Amino acid sequence: MPREIPTRPPAQAAPAMEFSELIKTATVENVQLSRPGQPAVKGTLCITSHHLLLSSRPGADLELWLLIRNVDAVEKRVQNLGWHQPPRTNSCAQDTTRLSGSSGTITLRCKDLQVLQLEIPGMEECLNIASSIEALSSVDSVMMMYPFFYRPQSLKLEEGWHLFPLEQHFQQISSQTSQWRLSTVNWDFSTCPTYPPTVIVPAAVGDAAVRKAARFRQGGRFPVLSYFHPKTGTVMLRSSQPLTGPNRRRCREDEALLGTALGEGGRGFILDTRSAQAAKQARMGGGGTEPKASYPRWRRLHRALERGRPLQESFARLVETCSDPSLSMDRWLGRLESSRWLSHVKAALSTACLAAQCLDREQGSVLVHGAEGTDTTLLVTALAQLILDPSCRTLEGFQGLLEREWIQAGHPFHLRCARSAHSHARLKQEGPLFLLFLDCVWQLSRQFPFSLQFGERLLLTLFDNAYASAYGTFLCNNEKERSLCKVKESTHSLWGWLSQPEQQQKLLNPLYSHNALVIWPSVEPQSIQLWQGLFLRWIRPSQHLDEAWAEIQRLVEENKAPVKEGTGNRLSQSLSEPCAGAGSR
Amino acid sequence: MPREIPTRPPAQAAPAMEFSELIKTATVENVQLSRPGQPAVKGTLCITSHHLLLSSRPGADLELWLLIRNVDAVEKRVQNLGWHQPPRTNSCAQDTTRLSGSSGTITLRCKDLQVLQLEIPGMEECLNIASSIEALSSVDSVMMMYPFFYRPQSLKLEEGWHLFPLEQHFQQISSQTSQWRLSTVNWDFSTCPTYPPTVIVPAAVGDAAVRKAARFRQGGRFPVLSYFHPKTGTVMLRSSQPLTGPNRRRCREDEALLGTALGEGGRGFILDTRSAQAAKQARMGGGGTEPKASYPRWRRLHRALERGRPLQESFARLVETCSDPSLSMDRWLGRLESSRWLSHVKAALSTACLAAQCLDREQGSVLVHGAEGTDTTLLVTALAQLILDPSCRTLEGFQGLLEREWIQAGHPFHLRCARSAHSHARLKQEGPLFLLFLDCVWQLSRQFPFSLQFGERLLLTLFDNAYASAYGTFLCNNEKERSLCKVKESTHSLWGWLSQPEQQQKLLNPLYSHNALVIWPSVEPQSIQLWQGLFLRWIRPSQHLDEAWAEIQRLVEENKAPVKEGTGNRLSQSLSEPCAGAGSR
Repeated sequence: MPREIPTRPPAQAAPAMEFSELIKTATVENVQLSRPGQPAVKGTLCITSHHLLLSSRPGADLELWLLIRNVDAVEKRVQNLGWHQPPRTNSCAQDTTRLSGSSGTITLRCKDLQVLQLEIPGMEECLNIASSIEALSSVDSVMMMYPFFYRPQSLKLEEGWHLFPLEQHFQQISSQTSQWRLSTVNWDFSTCPTYPPTVIVPAAVGDAAVRKAARFRQGGRFPVLSYFHPKTGTVMLRSSQPLTGPNRRRCREDEALLGTALGEGGRGFILDTRSAQAAKQARMGGGGTEPKASYPRWRRLHRALERGRPLQESFARLVETCSDPSLSMDRWLGRLESSRWLSHVKAALSTACLAAQCLDREQGSVLVHGAEGTDTTLLVTALAQLILDPSCRTLEGFQGLLEREWIQAGHPFHLRCARSAHSHARLKQEGPLFLLFLDCVWQLSRQFPFSLQFGERLLLTLFDNAYASAYGTFLCNNEKERSLCKVKESTHSLWGWLSQPEQQQKLLNPLYSHNALVIWPSVEPQSIQLWQGLFLRWIRPSQHLDEAWAEIQRLVEENKAPVKEGTGNRLSQSLSEPCAGAGSR
Repeated sequence: MPREIPTRPPAQAAPAMEFSELIKTATVENVQLSRPGQPAVKGTLCITSHHLLLSSRPGADLELWLLIRNVDAVEKRVQNLGWHQPPRTNSCAQDTTRLSGSSGTITLRCKDLQVLQLEIPGMEECLNIASSIEALSSVDSVMMMYPFFYRPQSLKLEEGWHLFPLEQHFQQISSQTSQWRLSTVNWDFSTCPTYPPTVIVPAAVGDAAVRKAARFRQGGRFPVLSYFHPKTGTVMLRSSQPLTGPNRRRCREDEALLGTALGEGGRGFILDTRSAQAAKQARMGGGGTEPKASYPRWRRLHRALERGRPLQESFARLVETCSDPSLSMDRWLGRLESSRWLSHVKAALSTACLAAQCLDREQGSVLVHGAEGTDTTLLVTALAQLILDPSCRTLEGFQGLLEREWIQAGHPFHLRCARSAHSHARLKQEGPLFLLFLDCVWQLSRQFPFSLQFGERLLLTLFDNAYASAYGTFLCNNEKERSLCKVKESTHSLWGWLSQPEQQQKLLNPLYSHNALVIWPSVEPQSIQLWQGLFLRWIRPSQHLDEAWAEIQRLVEENKAPVKEGTGNRLSQSLSEPCAGAGSR
């Protein structure tokens, strides 16, 4: 458990006295805000415990309300401005301490990739503001974060936290097979600290055997059911690497668990998200792979997926390239290539397709793991489900998938999303795996414009909230930490907010029509595109595209109203018609 | 005038006896057709004077109807098939001549970038078919081409040929300024063989002076009015290079014409589409630029745009790269970069923006020319008008623009579009300038989804028809040739076909709403995208995207029906609202 988590939560909606000492200057007037592609705005800047506010006139139109946690990097530049005295209409007490004729510029590079520039009259104010933002954005204690203080009137605290219980997911499965059971072997997080209290395991394997298998897997992440494919009766499992080690240790319980998972006469594929060489090298550190001799019905496939530092650097390079306005076309394409981001997208989608093919075409079960089983493993299992299972492609189903395969499955959001593309503090544990997943989902939505019930806006909202949020959904690294921090008791759930009708409306894909088929994406490089809506969001605002989207949505809504006799349902009819035949190759 | 044009047209709808000797084998059965991404089809292959037909059963469902003019390259491969005898259900007389156990494969690479593969039983048949297609697709005589034989029942011959007279365009201008007049100085094509009979020149300049100015310009292409910008009263002119030559010749009439064009106190920009160095070197060949001393109110700007061989090779390299399924992401991006196509798109859009800025922001007039004034010159003048003038963005207005600035302006379509990306016969005069223009228009339509009344389908139709067509619109190199060949009397106009309501319907952008503003595109490399709809049309069919488009169209249509009291007009209201404020930066 990371050491930064205090044992007792603060009182709800505490006045946050702890922050006051970090705020040296709370208010500065005549601050000019500049953003790319937007006219500059002048106003009063306020720093609070969690927000940076800029209002264009005191008490009037609010121009900016920025969560300080969203700030990824602060750059400051002070300068003597003898030649340029900014106009002062409202002089105030603070003015007396200001060094005459000097000012400073603070550039805030945000985690959502936005870049803001603040021109602040007064060198001291500028330095104070910068150091406050730096300090406040770096507070690492989970329970000091904004979700613990955010109390919107329209939501109740408990809303949204229990929308997607694993029991519900299991009920679907148990109606189709009796080979699996819900296990509470991890009820107190002692078997695996990064798993949720309930998991799905083979019905024939008892909890004692599961506990032994867990001791043979890194971090205790024993094989659990991730997805049951009704069409073929095959399953997708996930785990961490086995602790084979240099002495080629074995574990009968682990072997039995995986054997039982295949059923009688079944066969399976172990999809290792490391290269064969990396998997072999892992033995020296105590890890390794499942040897053929001990797991005779399993065939191993290696598909190396990047994670950690190389992925983080790929992300940072891409963002830097996207925001460079001076590039020639050649240089842009060269740097797009050398960032390797699109290669990562292609590799992730290809590997997910491979997993889906094993289940759907080869009628084999699949076990996915890399080393820790918390990153590329989840990327593959979540994407494969989206490709295979239409119920994951609804708004609710997708949120359930995220909850199951990312949040409760123990993707360490707190560590991975601590910093975004701009930060100079390259932490070892960072990695934009979740962003890579969202990008792959966007590629699917582009190739299958009818088949996902949600649009780009949901993906952008998820990206933003994973890195800085008013909600507790993406806080902490796993369910154990969330339980210790009382996240579900003391913060609001993002799902609660998104399930409000007026929010849902904005997230829906107006062209959606249920498509029962597998959606096999094209993974040729020619088919993979840069996600402009994310990477160029603040640089080249897609205002016109947003309007087009809104207009289509409005048209669909109007069309839904049963106006003409007998034609009220034409929309859904004609929509389901092309889709029924589409999407499967 | 190219030597291949016969002096007398053939009788209308002649039985084309001339072709019969080129067709050695007219029919082959059991031919298998393969296309990427589609199931193979077996049927009877027929070769006619102008078409290749493949029907799946005799007299039944027609599978393919290919204009032989569309074939860009023919590749044949014969092989002994001892191990694989194709099934023969209907043996016929031709079978007796067939070499037993042999067959051949013909790959047809089409000008519209489609690739077809025909597996033909019988080596001799295969060779005959291949040589027939080669010969028929290479017929270079304009009046032997299909448009002279095509007689659709739904159209009359004269329809569409007089939809966009220059007089109509001039009427708009003359309602706003009296500085310009229609001139028939070129009524018999003697002043400039590549100009239409009517042109617009300064009212104060007489035809005698125009004739003298024409002798000072390459190919007689004296400066004519291309566009009048009502907002600032400035004009865009186009011409070819002046024949300054090594001795720095001058022409008072040319200088006076350009001086008069500026009006009193006006100033202008000469936008030379060659580099400064290339323009200087052109003097050795008799060409050159306008020296400052002789044209004191004109300032010269150089923006080098590629044309001819380098552009053709860029196109060929891009198409080759797009159809290579084996590329890694790195290699794809590297080859996309080295094809340089997107650089050409960016350069063309940037230069058009520069011309538009001169007119709209700098309040200066513009003269655009390169060397001959028939290629990059027209690219820039046509694009600039699309950016500046909302009336060019309607379906009809765009067709008028094409007629004015490409067809009648003398872009040599016959030479430039003789061969497409696949041909190995690299002719010196080829160049996909018109495709580059269409690609730039597509970029505009993507960045401004509301502002063009037409969609991608029109652009694809134009590309297809420029390279191979049943219509006469893109035949020949200029109006003089069209007149000699009696194109307007003996062929149908593409505009006639497209103006039929059922065709128009398919071409319209359902989201269109009149936008009175200038649409300034972003020309940063990050904003320029590969036109997948064209370059990947046959490789990765965008079936789902087409369906989405059709669905939006249907929604708009249903919404237009005045069903609810008082809401019937909501669509057009809400559409014009966001657009009124959009598009201008």
